Amino acid sequence: MSGNKPLRPHPDRLFPAEPEQRAIARRLHEAVRDLPIISPHSHIDAALLDRDQPFGDPATLLVTPDHYVTRLLHAHGVTMSELGLADRDGTETAAPREVWRRFCSHWHFFLGTASRQWLEAELHDVLGVTVQPSADNADALYDELVAKLAEPGLSPRALYESFGIEVLATTDDPADDLRHHRALAEDPTWHGRVVPTFRPDSYLDATNPEWPRALDRLAAAGGIDTGDYRGTLRALESRREFFRENGATTTDHSAPDARMEFLDEAEASRLFDAARAGTADTEEAATLSRHLLGEMARMSSEDGMVLALHTGSGRNHHPETLRRYGPDTGHDIPLAAEFTRSLRPMLERFGTHPRFRTVVFTLDETVFSRELAPLAGFYPSVYLGAPWWFLDAPRAMRRFRDAVTETAGFHRTSGFIDDTRGFCSIPARHDTARRVDAAHLAGLVAEHLIDEDAAAEVLHDLVVRQPREAFRL
Amino acid sequence: MSGNKPLRPHPDRLFPAEPEQRAIARRLHEAVRDLPIISPHSHIDAALLDRDQPFGDPATLLVTPDHYVTRLLHAHGVTMSELGLADRDGTETAAPREVWRRFCSHWHFFLGTASRQWLEAELHDVLGVTVQPSADNADALYDELVAKLAEPGLSPRALYESFGIEVLATTDDPADDLRHHRALAEDPTWHGRVVPTFRPDSYLDATNPEWPRALDRLAAAGGIDTGDYRGTLRALESRREFFRENGATTTDHSAPDARMEFLDEAEASRLFDAARAGTADTEEAATLSRHLLGEMARMSSEDGMVLALHTGSGRNHHPETLRRYGPDTGHDIPLAAEFTRSLRPMLERFGTHPRFRTVVFTLDETVFSRELAPLAGFYPSVYLGAPWWFLDAPRAMRRFRDAVTETAGFHRTSGFIDDTRGFCSIPARHDTARRVDAAHLAGLVAEHLIDEDAAAEVLHDLVVRQPREAFRL
Amino acid sequence: MSGNKPLRPHPDRLFPAEPEQRAIARRLHEAVRDLPIISPHSHIDAALLDRDQPFGDPATLLVTPDHYVTRLLHAHGVTMSELGLADRDGTETAAPREVWRRFCSHWHFFLGTASRQWLEAELHDVLGVTVQPSADNADALYDELVAKLAEPGLSPRALYESFGIEVLATTDDPADDLRHHRALAEDPTWHGRVVPTFRPDSYLDATNPEWPRALDRLAAAGGIDTGDYRGTLRALESRREFFRENGATTTDHSAPDARMEFLDEAEASRLFDAARAGTADTEEAATLSRHLLGEMARMSSEDGMVLALHTGSGRNHHPETLRRYGPDTGHDIPLAAEFTRSLRPMLERFGTHPRFRTVVFTLDETVFSRELAPLAGFYPSVYLGAPWWFLDAPRAMRRFRDAVTETAGFHRTSGFIDDTRGFCSIPARHDTARRVDAAHLAGLVAEHLIDEDAAAEVLHDLVVRQPREAFRL
Repeated sequence: MSGNKPLRPHPDRLFPAEPEQRAIARRLHEAVRDLPIISPHSHIDAALLDRDQPFGDPATLLVTPDHYVTRLLHAHGVTMSELGLADRDGTETAAPREVWRRFCSHWHFFLGTASRQWLEAELHDVLGVTVQPSADNADALYDELVAKLAEPGLSPRALYESFGIEVLATTDDPADDLRHHRALAEDPTWHGRVVPTFRPDSYLDATNPEWPRALDRLAAAGGIDTGDYRGTLRALESRREFFRENGATTTDHSAPDARMEFLDEAEASRLFDAARAGTADTEEAATLSRHLLGEMARMSSEDGMVLALHTGSGRNHHPETLRRYGPDTGHDIPLAAEFTRSLRPMLERFGTHPRFRTVVFTLDETVFSRELAPLAGFYPSVYLGAPWWFLDAPRAMRRFRDAVTETAGFHRTSGFIDDTRGFCSIPARHDTARRVDAAHLAGLVAEHLIDEDAAAEVLHDLVVRQPREAFRL
Repeated sequence: MSGNKPLRPHPDRLFPAEPEQRAIARRLHEAVRDLPIISPHSHIDAALLDRDQPFGDPATLLVTPDHYVTRLLHAHGVTMSELGLADRDGTETAAPREVWRRFCSHWHFFLGTASRQWLEAELHDVLGVTVQPSADNADALYDELVAKLAEPGLSPRALYESFGIEVLATTDDPADDLRHHRALAEDPTWHGRVVPTFRPDSYLDATNPEWPRALDRLAAAGGIDTGDYRGTLRALESRREFFRENGATTTDHSAPDARMEFLDEAEASRLFDAARAGTADTEEAATLSRHLLGEMARMSSEDGMVLALHTGSGRNHHPETLRRYGPDTGHDIPLAAEFTRSLRPMLERFGTHPRFRTVVFTLDETVFSRELAPLAGFYPSVYLGAPWWFLDAPRAMRRFRDAVTETAGFHRTSGFIDDTRGFCSIPARHDTARRVDAAHLAGLVAEHLIDEDAAAEVLHDLVVRQPREAFRL
Repeated sequence: MSGNKPLRPHPDRLFPAEPEQRAIARRLHEAVRDLPIISPHSHIDAALLDRDQPFGDPATLLVTPDHYVTRLLHAHGVTMSELGLADRDGTETAAPREVWRRFCSHWHFFLGTASRQWLEAELHDVLGVTVQPSADNADALYDELVAKLAEPGLSPRALYESFGIEVLATTDDPADDLRHHRALAEDPTWHGRVVPTFRPDSYLDATNPEWPRALDRLAAAGGIDTGDYRGTLRALESRREFFRENGATTTDHSAPDARMEFLDEAEASRLFDAARAGTADTEEAATLSRHLLGEMARMSSEDGMVLALHTGSGRNHHPETLRRYGPDTGHDIPLAAEFTRSLRPMLERFGTHPRFRTVVFTLDETVFSRELAPLAGFYPSVYLGAPWWFLDAPRAMRRFRDAVTETAGFHRTSGFIDDTRGFCSIPARHDTARRVDAAHLAGLVAEHLIDEDAAAEVLHDLVVRQPREAFRL
């Protein structure tokens, strides 16, 4: 393929340009490069590893399901149908090869983005591609990758092994029967560790008109009636127990904000009945939702599951795209965040409770130095969540460390989470985090604020100690 | 002038100190240094180029009309009257030579500011000054510059040519007859391109007691009655068309925030009548104002004019200064901004409309990574406006690229706007942006995130492609 | 002590790693390293210097009273009782040696924090320690330091001399009789300058149930009845005068936010009477509090005392810790700040008043570029407060300069304040600020934005001119 530009991720990428710092960063990274991957939060489906089917084609693997990728293509005028998403209004869905062509012809628009780095690493390191995608080589690349993806070394389980994953946490509906997690646990040929995460958003959000039906599903899944408040709490507790029995250590929450209420039982029960009957007004339903989130904190203080808060995303900003293509299609837009006041009711109750633990994530960088580092720098139960989503990128990661370390140190942070929907991006994402932290620490060493031995210990802790501790893995 | 400190802007200014990065930045900058200047948003008066009168004296050119300069001198205790502004309370207005003396004696207080860099470049590159201004040399410098400014090579048109300006957008009142734009267009000796921008703030802000009189002016200008809601919309549409016929591609808006309403016609008409009659309360007038801004978006989706939003400035913070010296006197102070929720009504309607285009600017950096990059990274109609006003400075520009590129790439940003009231600062401002972007890209190259060829293409795009595309120039 | 890691703060710490910049920073710092320390805001008790008693033991000196240190130990699971704080619930308070052991065994958790740097400098430069604290050497170190602290060269007055302090401002209750300040002033053997600061929070905060009793104390201290509004103003004015007679130049305020009200006297008097009688509702009490803060601004415009605003801390976040261990125990958590609108009523009245001066501090970095630099860049009365509290750390200081200099220059900032409760940390803190500013200026020199001579002048101004000017010292 003459005219192709080479694709070769540089071994020193993300390290500082200044030679002394670069050398330090290289040494620090070298020592953690091959440590196992601990992934406490992902959107990988356990079925992928249970079934272990080949991935098929590169568009279905890398483009269509990744809303980081589709959103930017959409911004450059490619429609969701052209990216392989099914349209409820009936415009034709593009075939994978066409999707791949569009991706390749827009490749240059990813320059400078975090997605570009992951994609380069996936293409090169995982799939063996050595040229930059382009309109000219799209078809050849497609054929090459379809053939390659049929090879046994690229099956999900084979990749799990070669990626060096120690534990992978999925994100699951409390009504899920966890059949794939159980099948993996019972499979003598499988030696990995895939644990579920309890994600009860749809059962806590009483403002959603679908909420009563969600509770019906929960009742069906667990065999506990959810017709009243007490029953619903018991049903949730029961499903938490079921998840724990299957390896879960964490519950995960995506409310618009982190506010919680702690109502007395009579008031909670009253609001529950009204919302269940569809007679609660918006404010009552929102109050109940905040109370139910608070109940999750209470349960965590009892059963020891870690409460992971992923709040602050304004979901489904563009109604037409939601209606036609469904959620998670690239138009969740962050909102300003507030934690100091919002977390107070929870921390007043459980902040120094010995079993309680929470990891707090944000899409709003302004709270890193202002609120989260001070909170994690006082409460033993609070871990400062790593950069997440739009912030899960090298420069943002660097700003995170700059913003929080001086107040909270390194050991009140959670360690990296990949939050990925793209299985093949897992090693690239973790390696990016290790490189950025190595670079950050190299800067501190070069500025004589910390010696290199200590920096090496810190980096090791960030890679393995912190995620294990924060998520009780 | 013995004892003078030399004034000599360094050829490597704004490039990284680390030698490898500096060399890359130098090469990147070299390739775009002499590209034409595209200025999609300025406050230059078209009359300046139509009349082509000499500038006269340095105080009137560089100090009195530039609120970036006067505000900092004011902060150091110089009064507005001493800076050449007319005081309605009658204190004497200083003569230009006195103004210049004050400016020179306070020159050191500009150290580190963006204004200092522009002023150094203007003085040195445009006016040939080779010494730092000081109390000691103020008079000599004044005489030297008065003489120089009379030379034909320093006339506005001669400078326009020598600056290499390809297109210059002014900012104009919709009631303006655009006589100077038309005169320029009809002048066979003039080869530049000066286009108007439709700035209808005073016709949309129904909370301003002057609003009814503004509508009367609009009616007089366009010959369309503005006594009722429908007529006013027709009058605005008609003036937009007149502006387009005279080269305008953009409307520009300076509301306190970006919120819009989309009322039904009956309600809009009711509020209009009340506000026109002076009987609307504050909230009704504000609602109508947000609706009229929304109508601008609707019109943009029909006539294809780009909607530029410059919101978030708390205008005229100090009432006494406003009363005595008028607006735009250095005390507009930014406010916290919000776009995720504010822009939703507009984007719900026009976000994927093929003719609609908006460029969103902010004075609040926190929305760069949190809101604007995610929005521009999904909506094909949204361009992320360049750093503006207080943020239009090297370090802030660097933070802008750091904050937005990982999410939105380079090609969803608008390219540089100078927003200047100082004609002679145009080349310095554009060169600063080119240097900062070259430095930023050099950093990415040196960290091996992007190769130098790609960086060069990106920089070329930022200088010419992005502003042309974002503003349909 | 074999196995000990050496403790040796590097002479180039905090300077840029790039050799050219490092050399410049070194030269700039060298020129200001030995300039006297001006400390316009601290929490040192004047009694410390008046009594001049030895410090006793290292835990009582460095750990127990420093909420920067105790909060992070608390976050790592050490209880406040184990850190030497008395518990109202009666758990045993650890002895200093036990506190010291816990501190030493958690030493590595301070890596990367600002506290670590101060502690390293205190231990090494002031106390002569040359090994890193650890669980193994805790006891030996304790004994060594107890012995050392008994030496005359480590008495408070001896340290004051050796630190090179020119002036130290304490923070004092308006009802304080300032006996220690007066004793020092009258002591012929004492040559330092220790000035009080008027901190009237408890007399202005009418929302606090203790407020009436606080006013009673104020009446007792000054002999002016505080039973009505006018009397209370007179009492406050009288105490301000008493403080000024004893050297005070500044009043200091820690309201939750910077909002002020300027009520007419009848309304203020009405609210005062209601609040004094305990019949005001929460909103009335808050309105009165904001009015009383406004009265402080009015008094400042008359008596010339500088109004220092330290707002934005959500005090006492964890009620149980407050109840058991009292305030200032590490759980004051910052809140989002707003100044543009909040300061307007004050600045409308006094912003250009020749006697009025205010220094505005923030715990929310987002207002640096958005609000405070523009305000200080216009109003001659407004000085931009240095990084404070959680932001009083190298990387945050760097962000501060990056955020504000381009808009406000260097000469509208206040110069460093140490805000310390740890006497021995004073030189380390001031040296950190000098180093960070030297590094920042070195960056500007290396990027050819400012020449080295000018940078040296600026740094000198930041160290001595700015604090003297901003605080009228």
